[in-house]
Amino acid sequence: MTQPFADYQPEIYLNGLAEQTPPFTTDPTALDAAAREVLDDGPYWYVAGSAGSGATDRANREAFDRRRLIPRMLTGATERSLRTTVLGQELAAPVLLAPIGVQSILHDDGELATARAAASVGVPMILSTASSHSIEDVAAASGTGPRWYQLYWPNDDDLTVSLLDRAKKNGYTALVVTLDTWTLAWRPHDLDLSYLPFIRGVGCAVTFSDPVFRAGLEKSPEEDLMAAVLTWVPLYTGTDKTWDRLPFLREHWDGPIVLKGIQHPDDARRAADAGMDGIVVSNHGGRQVDGAIASLDALPEIVAAVGDRIDVLFDSGVRTGADVLKALALGAKAVLYGRPFAYGLALGGEDGVRHVLRSLLADLDLTLGLSGHRTPAELRPGDLTPR
Amino acid sequence: MTQPFADYQPEIYLNGLAEQTPPFTTDPTALDAAAREVLDDGPYWYVAGSAGSGATDRANREAFDRRRLIPRMLTGATERSLRTTVLGQELAAPVLLAPIGVQSILHDDGELATARAAASVGVPMILSTASSHSIEDVAAASGTGPRWYQLYWPNDDDLTVSLLDRAKKNGYTALVVTLDTWTLAWRPHDLDLSYLPFIRGVGCAVTFSDPVFRAGLEKSPEEDLMAAVLTWVPLYTGTDKTWDRLPFLREHWDGPIVLKGIQHPDDARRAADAGMDGIVVSNHGGRQVDGAIASLDALPEIVAAVGDRIDVLFDSGVRTGADVLKALALGAKAVLYGRPFAYGLALGGEDGVRHVLRSLLADLDLTLGLSGHRTPAELRPGDLTPR
Amino acid sequence: MTQPFADYQPEIYLNGLAEQTPPFTTDPTALDAAAREVLDDGPYWYVAGSAGSGATDRANREAFDRRRLIPRMLTGATERSLRTTVLGQELAAPVLLAPIGVQSILHDDGELATARAAASVGVPMILSTASSHSIEDVAAASGTGPRWYQLYWPNDDDLTVSLLDRAKKNGYTALVVTLDTWTLAWRPHDLDLSYLPFIRGVGCAVTFSDPVFRAGLEKSPEEDLMAAVLTWVPLYTGTDKTWDRLPFLREHWDGPIVLKGIQHPDDARRAADAGMDGIVVSNHGGRQVDGAIASLDALPEIVAAVGDRIDVLFDSGVRTGADVLKALALGAKAVLYGRPFAYGLALGGEDGVRHVLRSLLADLDLTLGLSGHRTPAELRPGDLTPR
Amino acid sequence: MTQPFADYQPEIYLNGLAEQTPPFTTDPTALDAAAREVLDDGPYWYVAGSAGSGATDRANREAFDRRRLIPRMLTGATERSLRTTVLGQELAAPVLLAPIGVQSILHDDGELATARAAASVGVPMILSTASSHSIEDVAAASGTGPRWYQLYWPNDDDLTVSLLDRAKKNGYTALVVTLDTWTLAWRPHDLDLSYLPFIRGVGCAVTFSDPVFRAGLEKSPEEDLMAAVLTWVPLYTGTDKTWDRLPFLREHWDGPIVLKGIQHPDDARRAADAGMDGIVVSNHGGRQVDGAIASLDALPEIVAAVGDRIDVLFDSGVRTGADVLKALALGAKAVLYGRPFAYGLALGGEDGVRHVLRSLLADLDLTLGLSGHRTPAELRPGDLTPR
Repeated sequence: MTQPFADYQPEIYLNGLAEQTPPFTTDPTALDAAAREVLDDGPYWYVAGSAGSGATDRANREAFDRRRLIPRMLTGATERSLRTTVLGQELAAPVLLAPIGVQSILHDDGELATARAAASVGVPMILSTASSHSIEDVAAASGTGPRWYQLYWPNDDDLTVSLLDRAKKNGYTALVVTLDTWTLAWRPHDLDLSYLPFIRGVGCAVTFSDPVFRAGLEKSPEEDLMAAVLTWVPLYTGTDKTWDRLPFLREHWDGPIVLKGIQHPDDARRAADAGMDGIVVSNHGGRQVDGAIASLDALPEIVAAVGDRIDVLFDSGVRTGADVLKALALGAKAVLYGRPFAYGLALGGEDGVRHVLRSLLADLDLTLGLSGHRTPAELRPGDLTPR
Repeated sequence: MTQPFADYQPEIYLNGLAEQTPPFTTDPTALDAAAREVLDDGPYWYVAGSAGSGATDRANREAFDRRRLIPRMLTGATERSLRTTVLGQELAAPVLLAPIGVQSILHDDGELATARAAASVGVPMILSTASSHSIEDVAAASGTGPRWYQLYWPNDDDLTVSLLDRAKKNGYTALVVTLDTWTLAWRPHDLDLSYLPFIRGVGCAVTFSDPVFRAGLEKSPEEDLMAAVLTWVPLYTGTDKTWDRLPFLREHWDGPIVLKGIQHPDDARRAADAGMDGIVVSNHGGRQVDGAIASLDALPEIVAAVGDRIDVLFDSGVRTGADVLKALALGAKAVLYGRPFAYGLALGGEDGVRHVLRSLLADLDLTLGLSGHRTPAELRPGDLTPR
Repeated sequence: MTQPFADYQPEIYLNGLAEQTPPFTTDPTALDAAAREVLDDGPYWYVAGSAGSGATDRANREAFDRRRLIPRMLTGATERSLRTTVLGQELAAPVLLAPIGVQSILHDDGELATARAAASVGVPMILSTASSHSIEDVAAASGTGPRWYQLYWPNDDDLTVSLLDRAKKNGYTALVVTLDTWTLAWRPHDLDLSYLPFIRGVGCAVTFSDPVFRAGLEKSPEEDLMAAVLTWVPLYTGTDKTWDRLPFLREHWDGPIVLKGIQHPDDARRAADAGMDGIVVSNHGGRQVDGAIASLDALPEIVAAVGDRIDVLFDSGVRTGADVLKALALGAKAVLYGRPFAYGLALGGEDGVRHVLRSLLADLDLTLGLSGHRTPAELRPGDLTPR
Repeated sequence: MTQPFADYQPEIYLNGLAEQTPPFTTDPTALDAAAREVLDDGPYWYVAGSAGSGATDRANREAFDRRRLIPRMLTGATERSLRTTVLGQELAAPVLLAPIGVQSILHDDGELATARAAASVGVPMILSTASSHSIEDVAAASGTGPRWYQLYWPNDDDLTVSLLDRAKKNGYTALVVTLDTWTLAWRPHDLDLSYLPFIRGVGCAVTFSDPVFRAGLEKSPEEDLMAAVLTWVPLYTGTDKTWDRLPFLREHWDGPIVLKGIQHPDDARRAADAGMDGIVVSNHGGRQVDGAIASLDALPEIVAAVGDRIDVLFDSGVRTGADVLKALALGAKAVLYGRPFAYGLALGGEDGVRHVLRSLLADLDLTLGLSGHRTPAELRPGDLTPR
């Protein structure tokens, strides 16, 4: 098997990036600054901002810096493959696009552009319940591309069932349930700007297009946006679920279920005990609990607790190929990749997402090989320095 | 019980902050810079400045950054309450306004504005002996709001007794005795600016209005300010008390007494042995001993020493809801909140203080819930990472 | 024996640097910024840039900062010598010029200038396979100066044998085999600038001048540069060797062989088991595996594993005399010195390289003596603080 | 006993600093920037510069930041005294002015101004062998002020004996022998500027005025400066002494002898074994061995080794009163205070030195008392946090 992703590097050297409009960068740690140039305050900070003082976001990055790869030489890592099995599904790489809502604030094509880019690279997109486009439209844009569905769990069981049904019918093969955002955190940038996309109906498309939701309205959202928004808000905010509600999801979803937002080993054990198929260790990129444990610091104990029972995915702070390898070495099966692709979307729509994704995978492929490994599954804790 | 404080968040999203004059921020770590814009050098640095090289102030913040919350999922934290019992008194939240003197250098309304704002939110104000307004006037502004009295312990027992009597008569329900400021520290910003409010009579109102003090003057402060100031200074500075003087306070104050400025477990034990009701672990926000231990680093050993005997409060460095939770997890019953509300006062008088306080409580309420807790009392050391 | 290198210091004080054009500096940590002034983006970033996020480069420097020398007094270190024996060869100092390719992007004289400067100081130059000048021309410029040859191991055994033969015939006395660059890493600066010297034929001189290589071309590189480049690229990139190929090198090189790029003690053991004469602990200055272990952090365990069997050299991050001493104290026999001399080359050609090299050796000589030592061999782990 | 030094604080508040010309500051960490404004490159960097990369200088400060004072309350520290006994001599405070040479590059009055200021505050000045003014002239300026003499140990025994005799005759009561500067370190700032005061005869006054030295010249320095300088240089540089030479000093100096520059416990033991009266733990403010251990990090082990046999003084990095207390808590009897007073000299001659010194002592006095102590001798390791 050849290295399809590493091929993107010679392509860039030969064809160049510098002439592109808007200019891209191959440095995932520089995408933020590039996106800042093209976005207005509201959309930029909605994506880049954190809860509270931003401490968790900084902690996420610092936890990666503290751990270091120990490369091995002469292992013959010429032939490599990034292919990975997660939840029984074979993925092109141990990477998925994290569920990010309201993508139309970044680019007119929003989630449709992201879906097309992800499909063209063969990486699963996880569609957010807060998408700017409907489940059906994104599935159409995704085509034969792999796709998962992320659930912000509504406070209305009929609506929940309807959403799950639509996702199943439209080819979403796994369900990711976000636990950490049953109410919105204190996010100073958004508050200072009074910028909340949902209040303008942005990110409500999945729900607005739902027959159960529409049946509960007097007029359609197209006719009375404000009434729809005011119905939407309490469906999604303010109510924390409890562990005893999980059987309801299992009953209405026959594919794998993954709980996203786990940060404590005991919660990981409860997820496994509840028959979940996987978890995502995540602090929502530092957007929910200010001052929370760095996601990478939470990973090892959680893997020790449940890594042999369920698939552990990782999210929050991934920027480079080395970051992916570090998460894998600590026991994650795959990682979710978030803000960087959103910046790519802002910078260049579908092309931008594809460029950012191909850059990450090329970086990952090269770093995997140069570290002396042939596959993601080879990584072990001993491939890292002690923290 | 609903979440009254978290409601402030949707209110901001709907009504906006950006249009307000003067502009506020919901980021407590950004208030300093905002206040810098509206204050002259003297008042700004009097509040923002530290002792010596500022090392203690930086250490206070760094100690919070080093410890991290481990959020729990699916706990059903929808219904929360911040109500807390401290010294046998029920508080709306585990937060009190720290005693800050000379508030009229920040806003003409000074402590009156602070008292009105604190009362409107239901949070106790701790009135400083160095207030710009008298005990009686602040009590009137406070109305039915909870209030404590902070004592800079005068070098004159008659005056001390008179101050305590006035506080009692005016509804101050607890006494906070500051131990760490019996002489003013080396504060380069104030010294370089030769800015000391007391020399101009600012912050002397409590004493100037005292009948015992006035009886010792030939002319009233209104008639001869300089003579009053020269009498005032030696009453408050240069003389350290000793532990054997505490029975005198107990004799003249029948409510709870709290010693503020404790940083060593042995001093905490002596406070408990002396029959005090509580202590405040504090380094005066880094304004007294340069190079002192971070207040949060001092907290755990002190709680271990006396936490089962007396109420331990925390002060110094609190900026965010997560900070409050960290202090609670380490055993504090409540925290004192200082500089940020002073910046709010500078930015918008009563409205500014109220905004800052409501922001902190909303942040705290949301972070409490998103961490998986329903009440402040639930927090345990295990909810934090090891330092 | 006198201190020939320290003499450079009084020479500078007496004759001055400030008047020189272009201006030099004696501060090796300032050379980077000075070179930035005179180089275009492409060449500057090719040398200064790192893999990925630059984390490994920063880690290299931080690892030096974390360890500190403990100087000794009154040892009579007046008479000193930097002479060192490595691989049975006596060196003027425990320092070699690291193999850096494509030096003509920095200065027209490229490796010829470097060879002349190195020879004039008596320090070995390690000639890169990616040199801008041929093995023979650099040997001629080097004259009687000591020289080693660095091999990027071609994917063609005949070419490999030819390169080794030419190196031997031209007086290169040791072979340094680079293991960590069998494919180029993800280097954002070069990618963003689409700057790869090899694609323009720069750094291909050693191969272009090789009879085996030329025999495989229809037209000579002078006649058809692009065809030569397209033949060159796959010879050097994309294929990782394995340990069982080392006997091939031993068979075709009768001098000492050193493996460069070792970062794990087990790889060091395999190198010793394979009969290699030495290793270079190196992460290629942070240019290959982003997020890799700091080279200095890898050194102690590797010395413990093989230090008594083979010579361990050190590379990556050396900037000052103190850095050299720290690597020696941890068991390295000598260090490779890279980017700073490249900056010297950019700033002043042969004079620039000589100045940078004499500065390092004067700094090293003085710091050795002021630390209380007479020779590099005296340094022990106990001369450093614990990490 | 009253607090004479703390009195400087109310004096400043009442009389102001802001109006002074040139403006001073009371923040010792801000003096560097203030001096930068008034000094030319050469003199500024001669004082502010470090060896090599400046790592040791930064380490000195960082070591202070890492350790923190734990203040005690209600100890009755009203009445304090800074008086300290060192080498059997009673000092006004545990502070001495470090020996700094060539002070005339900072201010025309040079060491004479420093001597007058030190005497007026009652703090010992340690006169450098590299003084811009002679032993006799500085003694006259010092008057009845306490004074010690620092020896750069010449490579000529007759000259050494002559210097010691002159020092004794002129009332210098202790001898400080600097061990760490028998040759000048690699100091990039001075080298880049080709700035070495001695080459212009600055800092040679002590030697130029010596009868033994003058007897060895054909013409006096006033008649032939260059010949005198060329005789001077080899007398002071390039030759490291050894431990067996110490009896020579003891033979020719009947007062206490202190070895300056000790950084290893074994060297401290040798000093005690050699009958020395004291040592100064010092890395010469980071000006000699780049990358050396922070002086404060070296202190505890050295005190453990010899603290009960000889007096251990501390030097390198002291800026604030808290720094002094930290060194005392770790076992130092007193500290040497260097660069800040040199900046004071540059800013305001005698007045500037006095202001800086009074500021430090006022800060020290206040911080001592606010930490709960009455005398320097009370400080113990337990008054600091673990490192």
